Amino acid sequence: MSGQKSSSGNFLEDFAPGQVLTHATPRTVTQGDVALYTALYGSRFALQSSAEFARQCGLHAAPVDDWLVFHLVFGKTVPDISLNAVANLGYADGRFGVPVYPGDTLRAVSDVIGIKENSNGKTGVVYVRTRGLNQNGQEVLSYVRWVMVRKRDAASVIEGHVPPELPDHVPADALDAAAVPKMTGFDFAASGEPYRWDEYAVGETIDHMDGMTVEEAEHQLATRLYQNTARVHFNQYTEGAGRFGRRLIYGGHVISLARALSFNGLANAVKVVGLNGGRHVAPLFAGDTVYAWSEVLDKAALPGRDDAGLLRLRMIATKDLPCADHPLPDEAEGVILDLDMWVAVPR
Amino acid sequence: MSGQKSSSGNFLEDFAPGQVLTHATPRTVTQGDVALYTALYGSRFALQSSAEFARQCGLHAAPVDDWLVFHLVFGKTVPDISLNAVANLGYADGRFGVPVYPGDTLRAVSDVIGIKENSNGKTGVVYVRTRGLNQNGQEVLSYVRWVMVRKRDAASVIEGHVPPELPDHVPADALDAAAVPKMTGFDFAASGEPYRWDEYAVGETIDHMDGMTVEEAEHQLATRLYQNTARVHFNQYTEGAGRFGRRLIYGGHVISLARALSFNGLANAVKVVGLNGGRHVAPLFAGDTVYAWSEVLDKAALPGRDDAGLLRLRMIATKDLPCADHPLPDEAEGVILDLDMWVAVPR
Amino acid sequence: MSGQKSSSGNFLEDFAPGQVLTHATPRTVTQGDVALYTALYGSRFALQSSAEFARQCGLHAAPVDDWLVFHLVFGKTVPDISLNAVANLGYADGRFGVPVYPGDTLRAVSDVIGIKENSNGKTGVVYVRTRGLNQNGQEVLSYVRWVMVRKRDAASVIEGHVPPELPDHVPADALDAAAVPKMTGFDFAASGEPYRWDEYAVGETIDHMDGMTVEEAEHQLATRLYQNTARVHFNQYTEGAGRFGRRLIYGGHVISLARALSFNGLANAVKVVGLNGGRHVAPLFAGDTVYAWSEVLDKAALPGRDDAGLLRLRMIATKDLPCADHPLPDEAEGVILDLDMWVAVPR
Repeated sequence: MSGQKSSSGNFLEDFAPGQVLTHATPRTVTQGDVALYTALYGSRFALQSSAEFARQCGLHAAPVDDWLVFHLVFGKTVPDISLNAVANLGYADGRFGVPVYPGDTLRAVSDVIGIKENSNGKTGVVYVRTRGLNQNGQEVLSYVRWVMVRKRDAASVIEGHVPPELPDHVPADALDAAAVPKMTGFDFAASGEPYRWDEYAVGETIDHMDGMTVEEAEHQLATRLYQNTARVHFNQYTEGAGRFGRRLIYGGHVISLARALSFNGLANAVKVVGLNGGRHVAPLFAGDTVYAWSEVLDKAALPGRDDAGLLRLRMIATKDLPCADHPLPDEAEGVILDLDMWVAVPR
Repeated sequence: MSGQKSSSGNFLEDFAPGQVLTHATPRTVTQGDVALYTALYGSRFALQSSAEFARQCGLHAAPVDDWLVFHLVFGKTVPDISLNAVANLGYADGRFGVPVYPGDTLRAVSDVIGIKENSNGKTGVVYVRTRGLNQNGQEVLSYVRWVMVRKRDAASVIEGHVPPELPDHVPADALDAAAVPKMTGFDFAASGEPYRWDEYAVGETIDHMDGMTVEEAEHQLATRLYQNTARVHFNQYTEGAGRFGRRLIYGGHVISLARALSFNGLANAVKVVGLNGGRHVAPLFAGDTVYAWSEVLDKAALPGRDDAGLLRLRMIATKDLPCADHPLPDEAEGVILDLDMWVAVPR
Repeated sequence: MSGQKSSSGNFLEDFAPGQVLTHATPRTVTQGDVALYTALYGSRFALQSSAEFARQCGLHAAPVDDWLVFHLVFGKTVPDISLNAVANLGYADGRFGVPVYPGDTLRAVSDVIGIKENSNGKTGVVYVRTRGLNQNGQEVLSYVRWVMVRKRDAASVIEGHVPPELPDHVPADALDAAAVPKMTGFDFAASGEPYRWDEYAVGETIDHMDGMTVEEAEHQLATRLYQNTARVHFNQYTEGAGRFGRRLIYGGHVISLARALSFNGLANAVKVVGLNGGRHVAPLFAGDTVYAWSEVLDKAALPGRDDAGLLRLRMIATKDLPCADHPLPDEAEGVILDLDMWVAVPR
C-alpha cells in the first residue's frame, strides 16, 4: 500500500486569484542563523554586526540582516508556490517593516493576486503578494513576486485571468520610516566609510571591486538554512540530466553576495527599506565568481526624519566579469542580477 | 625525546565486558549548533523550528533535533570506541529521554556489554550501551551499538565472550511517554501537513520524493560539529590510498539527511522516541544524491496519552536511486541505510 | 559619473610610523560563531566546549576559543593593512587578555610601529601592533605582525625607516596570569587526558597523529566569518590567473586546524596565553591534508599561581606529510606553519 501523503507541489491549475496560502513551518531566528549568514557572505555592515553600534542607533540589539529576513520568508513560500517553478521572474513593491531580532519567530502568508497562462499552453505565471510576520503578528516584510509555473496537464483550461498592476517602484513616502533606526550620532569610524547622504549624487556609479567565488556546499548550506526546498538547488542526480547539467544557485544567494560586496562604497547603507523590483537575468553556478556595482537612481528624504535619507540604488551583479565598466544586462554577457531597492544612509 | 601522550585509540584487546568508559569533552549545545543543523540538512519539523510552536506543545523553547542529540552523544564515544573501527555494524534498543534545549551540556558514558572475536583472528566486535546525560544527570538518550574493531596483535587471545541478547525492537510501553510533548491543539497549518495518527496505516509506504546531493565540505562540517574524530571522514591523504580511495561519510549524516527528506509525507512526526535498530548497508561518498522512503511497520498507543500516538517506521535511504519503487536492501543496488524507529504523531 | 567611494586598500605610501588605525566594523561574538568554529575545526578543548567545565574553572560561561578571538581581531585589520599584502610575514609579542564570551563586542586598533622599503623598490614591510578591545575597552589581545605591502608607485620615495626591535619571545612574567582560569579541581576525565604540567618535559615532542583535509568552502566560510576581506582567499577568477593558479587559504585557518589537531596529546592545554612568534612557511590550498606536531620549548611557573603552569610550545603544521618524524621547516618539504606560543595547563 502506497500512501499519497508526500507532495509534488502545486501546479498552475492549483492557483486561483484571491486564494490565501498560509505557509508551513514557522521559524525562530537565532544568533546561529546570523553567524551562518556572516560566514556565507562576509557581510560587514555595522548595524547588523555590532550590538553596541545597534544600541547607539536606538535598537536593543543588532537586528537581523534584511536579506536574511527576506530569504527566510521567501523560503517558506517555496513548497506551496515555486516547487514546480520554471523560473523566478521578478519582484515588486517590497517593503521592510519592523526589525527582526534573534529570538523572533517568522511565518509567511501569501495572497495569489494574478494568474496568466502562457501561449505555449504548458506553463503560466503566478503573481503572489507574500507577507512575513513575527510572533506578534507585526509585518516584517511584504513583497510581490511572480514565477513561471508548470501546468499539471497541458489540456486543462485556465480561465482568462490578467496580471495585477504593479508599481514601477515604491514611492519614498510609502516606505516605513519607523523601520529605519536612529542615525543621529552615527559612528563613521565604526561603520567603515565617511560618506553621508549629501555626498551621494543621482547618477553616481560605484564599482564594489571585490569578487567572490561560490562553492556548491556554500549555496546548499544557505538555501537549506532558509528552509527553501526548490529541487533545482540540491539534486545533482536529476539536474545533471537537466537543462543546465548542474545545480542552479538560489537567486537570493546572489542578492546577498552582491549586497555584502557593496559594503565597499556603500558601508553606510546599513538598512534596506524597500525592494522596488528585481530580475535574475541569468543563472549562477558553483565555481563562478560574483562581482557587483551600483548606481544611485534617485534620492529622497525620509518622511519626518532629518538624521537619515534614502538612496534608490540599482545593484547589478555579474559572474566572472569585473564591474569597473559598469556592465548592463542588455549590453554585456555575464550580468546575473538587476535589482532596484531603497536603502537608508545617515544624513 | 618523543612523548607518548597522543593516542592512537583503543583496539579489541583494550575492551572487557563490564568496563565503563567515561567519555571526554562535555559539550554545551547552543542555538549555533541548531542553525548549523538546519543549514546542513534543511530540516523543517515545526517543533524544532519554532519556539512558538514548541510553546504550544508545552515546552519552554524549541528542543534540539533528536538526531542532533544522537550525533553529539555518539561523537563523544568515538575516540574511546571506534577510532580503529572497521565498520559501525548496528544499533538497538535506543530510547530518547528528556528533551535537550540550547544551553544544556551533554556528556556520554558507555558500558561494554559484549565482545566477540571474529574467526579471522584480526578483528572482533565490541557491543556498548551508551547513555547521554545532561548537566543534571538526566538521561537524554540510551542506545546499544556494535562496531567491528581491529586487534592490536593478531596473536593475542581474546577470551570466549558472547554477544549480548538484544531486543528486536523497543516495546512501545518501554518508551518514555514523557519525552513526547503535548500534542493537544497541534497546529496542522504550521506543521505543514494535515495527517493524524489515525490516517497512517500499517504497511503504508511513503516516497519522500526529494533528493539531496552531499558535498565533502558539508559532511566534514557536520562530523566536526559533533566532535566525531573518526579518521576515515576527514583525511583524503590516507583515505585516498585506502579501500575506497576517498573519504567515507559519517553514517549519522545519512540518517539526518533521510530524516529531513522524510518531512515530505511525515511532517507531523515531529518527535523521534525510539531507535529499534539500524544498519548502514553501504557507504555514502561526496557527490552522491540521497533519497529516502518510509514504511509504517506498526502503530501503538502512547501509554497514558490520547493526544499522540506512535508509528514504528522503517526508513530506507538510497544513493542516486529515487524511491518511487520502494527499493529494499537485499533487492536493489543503491540502498545505504535501513533504520527502524518509533516516532510520535498527533492523534 | 563614477564615484570614488569604494576603496582599493592602502599601499606602502599610505603608512607612517606613529599612525593609529581605528579599524571598522565592531563585531558582536555569538554562540553562532562558536558553533561554526567547532564545525570548521572540530575543536574539543573542554574549557571552550562546556559551560559546566568553564564554571568549574571559575568562569561564568564557556569562553570563546583564543584563536577565534585572534581571527576576529585580525580580520578587522585586513581592509586597512593587508588588502594589498604580498605576504603575511610574521607575528611577535602576542598576549591574550581578558576572556571573550558570547555577547561581547570586539573592535581593533593598530599602531604602525615600523616601515621598511624593500630593495626592489616595489614593496616594503609594514609593522603594526594591533590591539583587540571589548565593549568595556578591556584588552582581549595585543600582538605585533608585519606584512609585505605593495607600493602604489615604484618611483615614490619612502623615508629611511627602520623596523622596530621585537622580543624573541614574551617573558613568562609579562603574560597576563589573570587570563588563565582557575585549574584547581581540574576534571581530567572530562578534559580527555590525564597529563599535568609536571608530566611535560622540555624537549618533549608530540605527534598529534590525525590529518584534516581542507575544502574551498570551508576556508571561505571561516575567513568570511572573521570578516577578513583579503582578496586572495575568495576570488578564483583573478587567482586562477595569479601566481598559484588558485585561491590561497588564510594562514590563520592553518593555525586553528593545527590547534584542534593538537588536542591529541595536549588536551589539557586549554588556554593559549601568549604568541611568541610565528611564520607561515608555505601556502595551503584546498585539497591538502593538514597534520601537526608540537615540541615543548620551555616551561615556566605562572606568576602567583600554583594551580596552573605554562608550557612554551613550538607547533609545526604540515601538508600531506604525517608528523611521526617531526619534520622541521628547513629540513622537510611540506611544512606550512611554525608557531611559538605559551599555553597554560593544570599543575
